[in-house]
Amino acid sequence: MVERFWKTAISKVEPNKILVRGYNLMELVGKYSYSDLTYLLWKGELPSPNQSRMMDALLTVCLEHSLNAPSVDATIFVASSGVPLQTAVSAGVAAIGEWHGGAIEQAAKILQDGIAHMKDAQLSSGEVAEEILRERSERKERIPGYGHPTHTNDPRTKKLLEIVKETHIAGPHVELAQKIEALTEKFFHKHLILNVDGSIAAIISDMGFDWRIGKGFFIVSRTPGLIAHAYEQMYQNKPYKAPEWNEIAYTGPPEREVPK
Amino acid sequence: MVERFWKTAISKVEPNKILVRGYNLMELVGKYSYSDLTYLLWKGELPSPNQSRMMDALLTVCLEHSLNAPSVDATIFVASSGVPLQTAVSAGVAAIGEWHGGAIEQAAKILQDGIAHMKDAQLSSGEVAEEILRERSERKERIPGYGHPTHTNDPRTKKLLEIVKETHIAGPHVELAQKIEALTEKFFHKHLILNVDGSIAAIISDMGFDWRIGKGFFIVSRTPGLIAHAYEQMYQNKPYKAPEWNEIAYTGPPEREVPK
Amino acid sequence: MVERFWKTAISKVEPNKILVRGYNLMELVGKYSYSDLTYLLWKGELPSPNQSRMMDALLTVCLEHSLNAPSVDATIFVASSGVPLQTAVSAGVAAIGEWHGGAIEQAAKILQDGIAHMKDAQLSSGEVAEEILRERSERKERIPGYGHPTHTNDPRTKKLLEIVKETHIAGPHVELAQKIEALTEKFFHKHLILNVDGSIAAIISDMGFDWRIGKGFFIVSRTPGLIAHAYEQMYQNKPYKAPEWNEIAYTGPPEREVPK
Amino acid sequence: MVERFWKTAISKVEPNKILVRGYNLMELVGKYSYSDLTYLLWKGELPSPNQSRMMDALLTVCLEHSLNAPSVDATIFVASSGVPLQTAVSAGVAAIGEWHGGAIEQAAKILQDGIAHMKDAQLSSGEVAEEILRERSERKERIPGYGHPTHTNDPRTKKLLEIVKETHIAGPHVELAQKIEALTEKFFHKHLILNVDGSIAAIISDMGFDWRIGKGFFIVSRTPGLIAHAYEQMYQNKPYKAPEWNEIAYTGPPEREVPK
Repeated sequence: MVERFWKTAISKVEPNKILVRGYNLMELVGKYSYSDLTYLLWKGELPSPNQSRMMDALLTVCLEHSLNAPSVDATIFVASSGVPLQTAVSAGVAAIGEWHGGAIEQAAKILQDGIAHMKDAQLSSGEVAEEILRERSERKERIPGYGHPTHTNDPRTKKLLEIVKETHIAGPHVELAQKIEALTEKFFHKHLILNVDGSIAAIISDMGFDWRIGKGFFIVSRTPGLIAHAYEQMYQNKPYKAPEWNEIAYTGPPEREVPK
Repeated sequence: MVERFWKTAISKVEPNKILVRGYNLMELVGKYSYSDLTYLLWKGELPSPNQSRMMDALLTVCLEHSLNAPSVDATIFVASSGVPLQTAVSAGVAAIGEWHGGAIEQAAKILQDGIAHMKDAQLSSGEVAEEILRERSERKERIPGYGHPTHTNDPRTKKLLEIVKETHIAGPHVELAQKIEALTEKFFHKHLILNVDGSIAAIISDMGFDWRIGKGFFIVSRTPGLIAHAYEQMYQNKPYKAPEWNEIAYTGPPEREVPK
Repeated sequence: MVERFWKTAISKVEPNKILVRGYNLMELVGKYSYSDLTYLLWKGELPSPNQSRMMDALLTVCLEHSLNAPSVDATIFVASSGVPLQTAVSAGVAAIGEWHGGAIEQAAKILQDGIAHMKDAQLSSGEVAEEILRERSERKERIPGYGHPTHTNDPRTKKLLEIVKETHIAGPHVELAQKIEALTEKFFHKHLILNVDGSIAAIISDMGFDWRIGKGFFIVSRTPGLIAHAYEQMYQNKPYKAPEWNEIAYTGPPEREVPK
Repeated sequence: MVERFWKTAISKVEPNKILVRGYNLMELVGKYSYSDLTYLLWKGELPSPNQSRMMDALLTVCLEHSLNAPSVDATIFVASSGVPLQTAVSAGVAAIGEWHGGAIEQAAKILQDGIAHMKDAQLSSGEVAEEILRERSERKERIPGYGHPTHTNDPRTKKLLEIVKETHIAGPHVELAQKIEALTEKFFHKHLILNVDGSIAAIISDMGFDWRIGKGFFIVSRTPGLIAHAYEQMYQNKPYKAPEWNEIAYTGPPEREVPK
């Protein structure tokens, strides 16, 4: 059979009807929340009440981090140049890279590989945590999802861990993430806190999400803020944001003659 | 006083604390939904229960429209080229242009200007609707927010109008939007349905949103779907999506000699 | 006849052959320059030697403007977040908006409309210049392509005007642009220099380009620099560029209680 | 010494003067070509006449590949949605990913590592070529820069190899790239041609470019074409390009009841 050029398992449009993962979207609206429907889009099924509550916390806990985030900075420079709102937001989404939200995916991969290995090799979570940290410290690599430049005790982690317990979602990945935190000092000579990226990584792993959709959580949670920042720059600040020429340190070669 | 280069009224970060519009984000998470916090980011205040319910419907009713949308198509082509998830999503957000979600802003501006004019000139909503339609039809311009190429009766409009009534949010802008629909046949020689863009435009106007943030509603509602489509293309389809050379019709000049 | 979904007049690929506007690309490479082929892509014909020289000057004269440009700033913030090179460059291109390179299109439209009107109404270029300036000053609008925040005498304009004369390309649009400059003081109470955007606008108009491709000149000329800045940020600077939390002025409401 | 937030070695702006890598840009324009100045931006020095000729060929040889490229397809879908020109071009640039131009960087890394290893271990280029191919075939990985889905004999490679010889730029990397091609059949059971990505990779390596700027060559060479395609879609085609709902194959679950 020839494969169709245009195909998708996500949704289906017909005149006057839209199906999402098999459900009529109009029967979901008003009954299931935005976070529920995000869950449906990504997992293919509707969440239970506990999963719904957890999902909403995951999508709100890292809602905003002011201009102390390259995605927001990119957004406001683009917004200042005279473009439509969505163009500025698009640049902010593009900036959700490996060092900015990307630790969710990296940490979720480590945790998911770790739990698979724990089961295969019949190890304890403490043993797996030691293996992960030893390997990282020997390769002189940071451990994604741990440590934070601003927060000494990430308030978002605390909140997420509360809710993951209340909702009975905490499972082996959350346990492993906490074991790793407890052992960071032994391998890295200082205590590295489980940060928001690491706690999201652990929870989405216990919820059964593929680590490769990890950045999706960060993108959705930051998008309303990117919109707010673009709007503020476009309509409440002066256009053409850029440092003045004399605020920029030039570190290149001194002026020289063009060859004859 | 010198204005600071970096400034914002949206949020504030301190070590171990994040304020959003004055509220400690950690006291909001688990208590207010994603849609509530989007409302807070854009309006500066938390919603009432009715506003919360309306907001959630606004952000879910146009969740998905399959590949029958340039934003999704842009996303899957970019996703097929070997890039991170957020890059593909970013391209989809960039495609939410004047002909794709943009009618929300255009229609909201018309409705907000119309209601302001109605009050100034002490007109009825029917009179304003006639003025708006007459002007458009004389300039031979389409009326944004009305008509749809696929849906003869946009199911999303029906759902939104139900909820706007239940929540007692319907006000003069919704009334004007419906008056316009009722009169389209008179001016455009066929009945043009109030579509999802037009109904969102009317409702956000009755909720007190500036028309210039209209596209924000569409961006937020489509982002989880753009993520799902990017993921599907990246991990479930073949890389490098493009039509074959022999599927492309060439309409340029025939082969010619390069000048000596 | 049914229109094909995939069609273009620009180029045609067959196995082992690529035609661009009818020419075999391999017969052009090594014989025609990058600027020549850009001309071919946009105009459909190869340039004469004078047009070639002019084109190259147009595409190099605004090559770089350091970090004093939102496009470069957007590029470096995105580059700092851990993304591939092209993602950062893409954000820079997105920032080439109405206030940043966009004056080329705006000014070219004014000049092209002006010359069309001059011919229709049998006016002199001085009369048209007066009309344009009067209309702008009455509407209290700036005149795009004139004035510069950093340069009191834009060196790029001087260079372009030299080359447009040498190549005998200067025509009515360049003349009109200069007439407008000479009259700015009369209408705006200070002399506004013809800036690089305005001079590019005039020259491309005399070369027969549609004003709507004006931003293309700026995009092409800035792209190598965006790549250089992305590379510098990615490989020579520290990752995650953003102001520290305590460098950001917060102008929103003071901390307040979350409602019960 | 405190590091300045805004700093760059690339260029410096002062009132009425712009320095690029130490040269006054206005003394370069009209004397050095666009390709020369791209070389200056990326290498920090002006090219010799042979380097200039080679650079121009590198930046033109993969100018266009019609709609048979995800970057162009992404561009036209975004362009069809009602956005400014640069937004559509930006999406095309974002699509220059690992499977679309990205082989330049991958191949250049392999070649640069290979030549470094050849010198360290005092091997012949044939021995290094064998090692590279053996490793790839054992890991069942494709060798980037070899093979093409459309071209059985990439005309762009032939043209580049002609010019690299004429300009006396061909060195060990080009030799290694050709040795690898000659041995592909031995390891992959079919002859894989050196494609345009592979030949660009070899040549820029012999020119002394860091492999990590490889995608820059592809981005610059495709940008004028992305602009041409965006313009064609915006001004010569119908808006809102997307497949119709009934052209899309839906592969998800059948319609189902929303749970009570």
